[in-house]
Amino acid sequence: MAIRIALVGMGKIARDQHLPAIAADPDFELVATVSPHHAGVDGIPHLPDLETLLTEGPALDAVALCTPPQVRHALAMTAIGHGVHLFLEKPPGATLGEVVALETAADAAGVTLFASWHSRFAAGVAPARDWLARREIRSVRITWREDVRVWHPGQAWIWEAGGFGVFDPGINALSIATAILPRRLLLTEALLEFPANREAPIAAILGLRDTAGTPVAMDLDWRQTGPQSWDIEVDTDAGRLTLSEGGAVLALPDGSTRQPDGEYPAMYAHFASLVRDRASDVDVDPLRLVADAFLRGRRKIVEAFDA
Amino acid sequence: MAIRIALVGMGKIARDQHLPAIAADPDFELVATVSPHHAGVDGIPHLPDLETLLTEGPALDAVALCTPPQVRHALAMTAIGHGVHLFLEKPPGATLGEVVALETAADAAGVTLFASWHSRFAAGVAPARDWLARREIRSVRITWREDVRVWHPGQAWIWEAGGFGVFDPGINALSIATAILPRRLLLTEALLEFPANREAPIAAILGLRDTAGTPVAMDLDWRQTGPQSWDIEVDTDAGRLTLSEGGAVLALPDGSTRQPDGEYPAMYAHFASLVRDRASDVDVDPLRLVADAFLRGRRKIVEAFDA
Repeated sequence: MAIRIALVGMGKIARDQHLPAIAADPDFELVATVSPHHAGVDGIPHLPDLETLLTEGPALDAVALCTPPQVRHALAMTAIGHGVHLFLEKPPGATLGEVVALETAADAAGVTLFASWHSRFAAGVAPARDWLARREIRSVRITWREDVRVWHPGQAWIWEAGGFGVFDPGINALSIATAILPRRLLLTEALLEFPANREAPIAAILGLRDTAGTPVAMDLDWRQTGPQSWDIEVDTDAGRLTLSEGGAVLALPDGSTRQPDGEYPAMYAHFASLVRDRASDVDVDPLRLVADAFLRGRRKIVEAFDA
Repeated sequence: MAIRIALVGMGKIARDQHLPAIAADPDFELVATVSPHHAGVDGIPHLPDLETLLTEGPALDAVALCTPPQVRHALAMTAIGHGVHLFLEKPPGATLGEVVALETAADAAGVTLFASWHSRFAAGVAPARDWLARREIRSVRITWREDVRVWHPGQAWIWEAGGFGVFDPGINALSIATAILPRRLLLTEALLEFPANREAPIAAILGLRDTAGTPVAMDLDWRQTGPQSWDIEVDTDAGRLTLSEGGAVLALPDGSTRQPDGEYPAMYAHFASLVRDRASDVDVDPLRLVADAFLRGRRKIVEAFDA
């Protein structure tokens, strides 16, 4: 029997990715959508808020939360309180404490909690991890430079405290790096650039190392016009591995491969197996590294930025 | 047989608290001190750095690390690598990732790791926790206002990134609050005030709540001249509990008690029992709340501050 799921938060990511992935997956049946200000989908019940969904809406087994992170925690706790399985868009919370509390609550309620990191499901990530497991790693360079005006039009929450600014895309890079590198990463220094008129950083330089001392340099910038960069380069004893286009393209010393994008379909397949197994998948490492960058980093005020 | 211990980092806290506590405890024998720039103690071997201590110094079982947090992690990993038990001054790291890595390493090496929070050993803390366990808590107010010029003279590291600024004392309040309150605390909002010439905040207002929704308001300020405040007030169904003077004085509806300060002697007694039991004591909750305040909080630039 298909898992009856409702989609909560009908912004860009829900429409671009979640709706098509759910529609294409026979393991799921979309039974409702929820949003106080966005429209729903033709032929599917649409509710104004989660409380109304859970008390007056159709029967359901799971919800996928695609709201901004600042309001996600209260919604997630409500869903868990109703015994509903949870698929969380990234990041899993606006704070680390929220994620710890969610894990505890989901565990006590016996529901599945999937704190998703979509970039980990990019085609090149699993083969990159397997290739690196057999190599000696010498250094890592992460370059994540994109044009915020192109990729986040009208997303005010992203500039607010708890929206993480340039770490909203940057956490995708960290979710990949923590998945493909064999050892734990530690943040050693950071410089965060805050526009004079914004609560969140527009650029950051991070210095990390793994527990064996291997240096990992990370360069994040939201002011990149022209060519965009979502690249991770790893120098090893067997030459260089490059993951580019956010993990879609993998280049190894003996050649390059590109697979079609399948991040969200792969995530829903994973969520279905978690629900069937009564298991959870929560990894806070990418969020902890972002928190450590805010905690440990120096701050620089830069030119005001208008979207 | 006494635990042979070396003291690493001979600044203010080592001299004011660690030396007398070790001298008074028959479970410990001070066998060396380490500092690259401070002097040692008459009659005790003094080494310039930890590496020299571990390779050329007297035999030892444990070290207490009292260095600034920014350099503590590398020293701690070195000590663990030599199979030495560790007493860490607070905070246990400059980042959360460091603490996770230390726990993993100490566990693998089979050594005791005690990530200490001295304020939890203040006389009023345990009776406050016991009294609150039987009450319904309605609200909590934490006021931690002190004069940084009086309490942290010449401590440059405290103003640098990773030194945490006003959260260096503030984390003491959080270590008490997380010990006496029965439910987990979540940070919901924060405002951090950074002097224009400093990397760390001089004041902060935090809004928290526990997992049952009870509000916890916290007010931190380093610019307090005149009377100083280190108070936690808890309103309950049975009246108000007030812990003041950093936990030393406990006032309940039926009267007030003050015990002599015994934080560091109590911590060394606890460390001795951990070492004998081959156990560890590491609680990251206070540090996670500080990280969440930096991650989630708004920032305000305020007047430059000269110590």
